[in-house]
Amino acid sequence: MAHKAALIGGGVIGGGWAARFLLNGWDVAVFDPDPEAPRKVAEVLANARASLPQLSDGPMPGEGSLSFAARISDACTGADYVQESVGERLDLKHRVLAEIQSAAPGVPIGSSTSGFKPSQLQEGAADPSTILVTHPFNPVYLLPLIEVVPSPATAPEIVARVKDTLTTLGLFPLHVRKEIDAHIADRFLEAVWREALWLVKDGIATTEEIDEAIRMGFGLRWGQMGLFETYRIAGGEAGMRHFLEQFGPCLTWPWTKLMDVPEFNDELVELIAGQSDAQSGHHSIRDLERIRDQNLVGFLRALKDRDWGAGRVLNAWDTARREEAMPGAEPLEMVRLTVLPGWIDYNGHMTESRYLFASSETTDAFLRHIGAGLDYVAGGHSYYTAETHILHKGEAKVGDQITGRLQVLAADEKRLHVFVTLARGEDVVATLEQMLLHVDMGAGRTCPAAPEVLERLMPIATAHAALPRPDGAGRFVGQRKS
Amino acid sequence: MAHKAALIGGGVIGGGWAARFLLNGWDVAVFDPDPEAPRKVAEVLANARASLPQLSDGPMPGEGSLSFAARISDACTGADYVQESVGERLDLKHRVLAEIQSAAPGVPIGSSTSGFKPSQLQEGAADPSTILVTHPFNPVYLLPLIEVVPSPATAPEIVARVKDTLTTLGLFPLHVRKEIDAHIADRFLEAVWREALWLVKDGIATTEEIDEAIRMGFGLRWGQMGLFETYRIAGGEAGMRHFLEQFGPCLTWPWTKLMDVPEFNDELVELIAGQSDAQSGHHSIRDLERIRDQNLVGFLRALKDRDWGAGRVLNAWDTARREEAMPGAEPLEMVRLTVLPGWIDYNGHMTESRYLFASSETTDAFLRHIGAGLDYVAGGHSYYTAETHILHKGEAKVGDQITGRLQVLAADEKRLHVFVTLARGEDVVATLEQMLLHVDMGAGRTCPAAPEVLERLMPIATAHAALPRPDGAGRFVGQRKS
Repeated sequence: MAHKAALIGGGVIGGGWAARFLLNGWDVAVFDPDPEAPRKVAEVLANARASLPQLSDGPMPGEGSLSFAARISDACTGADYVQESVGERLDLKHRVLAEIQSAAPGVPIGSSTSGFKPSQLQEGAADPSTILVTHPFNPVYLLPLIEVVPSPATAPEIVARVKDTLTTLGLFPLHVRKEIDAHIADRFLEAVWREALWLVKDGIATTEEIDEAIRMGFGLRWGQMGLFETYRIAGGEAGMRHFLEQFGPCLTWPWTKLMDVPEFNDELVELIAGQSDAQSGHHSIRDLERIRDQNLVGFLRALKDRDWGAGRVLNAWDTARREEAMPGAEPLEMVRLTVLPGWIDYNGHMTESRYLFASSETTDAFLRHIGAGLDYVAGGHSYYTAETHILHKGEAKVGDQITGRLQVLAADEKRLHVFVTLARGEDVVATLEQMLLHVDMGAGRTCPAAPEVLERLMPIATAHAALPRPDGAGRFVGQRKS
Repeated sequence: MAHKAALIGGGVIGGGWAARFLLNGWDVAVFDPDPEAPRKVAEVLANARASLPQLSDGPMPGEGSLSFAARISDACTGADYVQESVGERLDLKHRVLAEIQSAAPGVPIGSSTSGFKPSQLQEGAADPSTILVTHPFNPVYLLPLIEVVPSPATAPEIVARVKDTLTTLGLFPLHVRKEIDAHIADRFLEAVWREALWLVKDGIATTEEIDEAIRMGFGLRWGQMGLFETYRIAGGEAGMRHFLEQFGPCLTWPWTKLMDVPEFNDELVELIAGQSDAQSGHHSIRDLERIRDQNLVGFLRALKDRDWGAGRVLNAWDTARREEAMPGAEPLEMVRLTVLPGWIDYNGHMTESRYLFASSETTDAFLRHIGAGLDYVAGGHSYYTAETHILHKGEAKVGDQITGRLQVLAADEKRLHVFVTLARGEDVVATLEQMLLHVDMGAGRTCPAAPEVLERLMPIATAHAALPRPDGAGRFVGQRKS
C-alpha cells in the first residue's frame, strides 16, 4: 500500500514537498486555505516532472495521488508523515501543530521553518516528542539537503524514522545536533546577503556583477566540495593547518560590514529590484525556473557519474529503488531527457550525434539495470557496441522531453541485440538498433557475461521475445520500404 | 608568432596561470626563486592538461613552451603580458613591480593579489598606468572568473587590452569598477569563513557537516545562478520586490556573529584541522585536486550544453578559436580531430556518440565544400540525415588523431548517399554510411538542391562512382560477413 504524506501549506515549498513525495510514489493530501494553492502546487509539480526523473537511471515508481483537503484534520487522516510549511509566524505554527497532533497523534511532524528552533515550535504542544525541524531548500524536488533539527524533547526514534523517510525520497538529511537560530545553511546565506546589500548600496557592484562573481568562481567550487574541503586543497601538501596559519591573521582585517545592517528602505528596494530587472527581466520567472532546474540536473548528473557529493545520494536512491523493480513484457522505459540548447544544430533540430547520445544513455541505464554498470566494468568486463543502425523519423527541438525505451531483440551469453526507441510523447523521433558484444577487456576478445548478469538479462530477453518485431529492425541504409 | 607571458611567482596560483597560457598556445617564462617552483608548476600543469582540454570541443592549439628565468628581467624580455603572483606583502610587490617595469616598460602587469587595491600596488611606481589587479580563483586553469580591478591611474586602454587577453584564454574578466578591500568575491568568502569558524568553535557543526550544508544545497544553486537571480525566482511571480519585502525585516535578526571575530589560537587550529583530517584525510591532496577538477569539468560541460553562465564563456572561447583555425580543405579528407579526454567512456575508449560526432564534422565540412554550409541553410534549404549505419572496427583512445574521409556513393538532385571513414593513421576505427535528403525547410519536404550546389556535388559523385564500393557499405545490423 502507498504511503501517505499530509502537507500543511501549499506554496512553493509545500509544492516542492508534494512533488518529492508524489514522484516517489507517495499519496499526498495538501491543506492550504489559499484558493490559488492547487494552481501553485500544479506548477511546481510540472517543473518537477520535467526534471526529477532525469536524475533517475531506472524507471520511476508510479506517481502517487494528489488531493486537497478542506481541513487540516482531513489531510492528516491516515498520514504516515506530516510536513508543515505555513508562514513564518510562531502563533500560526503553534495553532497548526496543535490541530495536526489532535488528528494524527504519534505521527512525525517536520516543519519547513527557516527561522524557528524546534524547542520554540514545541512550546505548549500536547506531544513535543513528534515535532522537529526538517528545513528544505528550493527547489525541494531537486536539491537533496534537508536540515533535520530535533530539540532534546524530540524522541530519538522519531528522528531516526524521519531521516529514513527522507532518505527514501532521495533527500540528504543533515542532522543538526544543536538547535541554533537559522540552523546552519541560512546563517551563511544571511552573511552573504548582508554583504551583498552593502556592495549594491555603496555602488561597488550591481546585482549582476555580484552574481557573476559567485557563479563564475566559488559557486562552482561549492556545489561539489564545501568550504573546508576546498581550503584543504588550497593549503596544498602542507594541509589544513598551513592554510589556517596563512589566512588566520586576515580575520582581523576590516573586510566585512556584516553586523552593521544597511537601512532597509524604499530606496534600497528600488535600487536592487531595478538592477535585478535589468539583469534577469528578459527571462520570465517560469523560464528562470526551467533554466535553473536544467542546470541543476546537469550538475547533479555530473556528480552522479562521479559518485560524489549529491551524486552519491542519487546513486543510493537508485540502488534502493532498483531492488524493488520488476521486469515486465514491454519495452523498458530507461531514461527521460530534455533536449538542451547545446544539442541543437544549425537547422534548429537536435544534432544527429545527440540521437546516438540519447540512445547510449538508454542502453547504459539498461546495462546498469542488469548489473553490468561501472562496478562490473571495473572488474574487467563490459559490453561494447559493435554495430548501430539509426533511422530518423522525426525531429527533436529544444525543450522536447524525449523518452528512451529499450527492447531486447535477442540475447545469448555473448551477444545483446537491442532496439531503442526515442520518442517525444507518442511521436517516435528515431529508432536505433544495436549489436553489443560482451568482452573481456584485458584479453581484448568476446567472452560470456557473468552468471549474475545473465540471470537478470535472460528473463527480460524471454519476456521481450513475445513482443512484435519493431518497425525498422533489420533495415540497411537505403532499403526501400516494404 | 606565439605570444609570451611572463609569470612572476610560480606557486599554485602562478602554476595555474602558466597552465592557462601554455594550453592556449602562449609561451611562458616563469621567475620564482623557490628551487621547488619547476616541480610545483609541473604538477599544476599535469592537472590542467588532464582537465582543461575536456572543456574544448575543437582541437586545442599546440602547447606553448615553458621556461624558467633566473631573473625577473630575463622573464620579462619580449613579454606581451606580465602576471605577478608573489606573496601578499606590499613591500615585496612594490620591489617586484619596479623590476618588471624597468625590464618591460609599457607592458600590462596584472597582479593576483586578493588583499591589496591597485592604488596600493601603484604607490611609487614609475608608470602606474600599466598596473592593475587581475585576481584569479583556484584552480585557475578551470574557473573562468578573474576580477579585473583598475585604479583611476590605470590607463583605460591597458584595461581593455588585458580584458581582451584574458578572454582569449577562456577566462571571464569581471570588471570591478571601484576598488575596495578584497575586491568582491573574497568579501563573501570571508563572511562565510567567519561564520563557519564560529559554528565549529561553538560545537554547532563539524567541518564536514558545514561542507554538506553547502554542497547539498545552496552551493549547487550558486554555481549556475548567483545570489540575486536565485532569490528573484524565490520571490515567484511577484518578483524581487516581493522577495525583499518578505525577507528584508529579517536583516535585523541576530543570526550572525560575523564582525565579532573568534580568537585565533592553537586550540581553534587543532579543532578545525582535526575535523578536516577526519572528513577528508583518506584522500590525498592530489586525489582531492583530481576529484575537484573532474567535478568542475562536469559542471562546466553541463553549463556549456545549456549555453549558460560559465558554459557561455566556454562556447565563446570555442567559437573564437574555430574562426582562427580553419582547416585547409583538402578534397574529401575533410577533418582531423584529436580525441579529447571528455570523449572517453568508462571503457577508456571514445564514447560511441563521438564517432557520429566526428562523422558529422566530416559531413558538415563536405557540405561547406559543395556550398551547402551555413549561408545556404540561412536561405531556407539544407541537407537532413535520414538514416545512418555505423560499423565499429576499432577503438579510439585519448590523444588519437582521427582523420575523417568522405566518399559519395550516390547522389541525385535530392539525395546524397555518403560513406565516411574514420581512421587513426591507416587503422579504420569506424565507418558510417548515411543517406542525406535535401529539404526545403520552410515547406518541410524534400526538394532539388540549388544548381550551384549540384554543380559542385555531381562532378565529385561522378568521380567517386569509379571508386570501389567500400567494405561495409549496404550492411544491416547483424548481417553475416560475406
